[in-house]
Amino acid sequence: MPVTITALEDIPLVQPGDDLAALLIDALARAGLTPLPFDILVIAQKIVSKAQGRFVELASLTPSQEAIELSEVSGKDSRLVQAILREAREVVRARRGLIIVETHEGLVMANAGIDQSNLSAADQGRRVLLLPENAQRSAEELKTKLDAHFGAAIGVIISDSVGRAFRLGTVGLAIGAVGVPALWDRRGEADLSGRRLEATEVGFADAVAAAAVLAMGEAAEGRPAALVRGLEWKAPSRPASALVRPKSEDLFR
Amino acid sequence: MPVTITALEDIPLVQPGDDLAALLIDALARAGLTPLPFDILVIAQKIVSKAQGRFVELASLTPSQEAIELSEVSGKDSRLVQAILREAREVVRARRGLIIVETHEGLVMANAGIDQSNLSAADQGRRVLLLPENAQRSAEELKTKLDAHFGAAIGVIISDSVGRAFRLGTVGLAIGAVGVPALWDRRGEADLSGRRLEATEVGFADAVAAAAVLAMGEAAEGRPAALVRGLEWKAPSRPASALVRPKSEDLFR
Repeated sequence: MPVTITALEDIPLVQPGDDLAALLIDALARAGLTPLPFDILVIAQKIVSKAQGRFVELASLTPSQEAIELSEVSGKDSRLVQAILREAREVVRARRGLIIVETHEGLVMANAGIDQSNLSAADQGRRVLLLPENAQRSAEELKTKLDAHFGAAIGVIISDSVGRAFRLGTVGLAIGAVGVPALWDRRGEADLSGRRLEATEVGFADAVAAAAVLAMGEAAEGRPAALVRGLEWKAPSRPASALVRPKSEDLFR
Repeated sequence: MPVTITALEDIPLVQPGDDLAALLIDALARAGLTPLPFDILVIAQKIVSKAQGRFVELASLTPSQEAIELSEVSGKDSRLVQAILREAREVVRARRGLIIVETHEGLVMANAGIDQSNLSAADQGRRVLLLPENAQRSAEELKTKLDAHFGAAIGVIISDSVGRAFRLGTVGLAIGAVGVPALWDRRGEADLSGRRLEATEVGFADAVAAAAVLAMGEAAEGRPAALVRGLEWKAPSRPASALVRPKSEDLFR
């Protein structure tokens, strides 16, 4: 059976306070989709953040000395840098045009995941949108509501689209995951020759997010969620935090 | 229209000298699939390497002084380390259990992509399988044959499954790509609010490879290729090398 990825169309522009589960249930109904066990609903972080009202008015921020210095290095607005630093546990790298930090959730990403695209024209340069406050908890809350509505235990992933070390181009990544083995340990399994696999921990939720983001698109498509159907696994659920490589084991930190 | 990913079943174990295009054409026919424009056939590097006979007898290798030293650091067989160094332009990081190099094609990966899974029982510990000699050329040659057979211009990606900086777990990656925008520059496009996208170069072929590898599986599934259908793009084709971040622009080198 093929794996199918159906991007959900015509989800209204999300406003702070919106009931995201209700919007997703409506969009699934319009697409004629009733979630089944092993289905995974992937949701772009942007609409989770918008529903949470994770906007920050740049004018409300007073840049610290560190923010001013990083602003000079990076060429970024010092108030934006202040917003980035507030979301960061540590600055990992900085240079012109780029600030890479570790977020409080352990994600290593440019600008702490703050971006300014897909904001209304009036908001541009005036306010920015942070990552969800706790993407894992958002995924869990959405799963609870969706499972109750559909009577099926599904997987829920909150995705973001991020740059990478060594490679150009953004790909989707899982910043929240529930009901799936975010990191799938297959090391005990056999390969085709019956030999035990040496080192195959699969970045399952990241790959699902990458696949879903492909189908959603990144520009004006207006499809901020996708249902992935046809994958199966025999592994316990693990949260997105299982995908974070501990700093102590990271050769590039 | 949903994106569908159909893993191809029952491809025979590939032997050196096999005509991979013929095997893939047979497998597509068995799956009832006739490739159409914008379809992308993703092929695991392992069967490309096997068809090319990219096996190396460990006994045939004499470890250099560098290989012996790296063997001590990593705990790996010094002959295997010699094989890794032969495939490498530079050693990027090494520690116990892990050697990360930059290959001659610019790929930063553990063990130069050499692995020992899915080799026959008789081969284990005796010989290893290198990456394809030139994965980009392999992709191009396969595309030429497949396009001629099916009368349609398809995309072809050679995938590998690799670890990542900052994240645990392997995901699929494109090491050869033709007929697709491996790196898709969408920066001129507008977002939902009509604002130009700030920084969206999409790692398209990597994401397609990640999606396809999910459907193929990594252990004993025996499905080393998958057809991805339903994606569209308006962008010129670019090879997999477009995904390699130049060392001079890499903050983690």
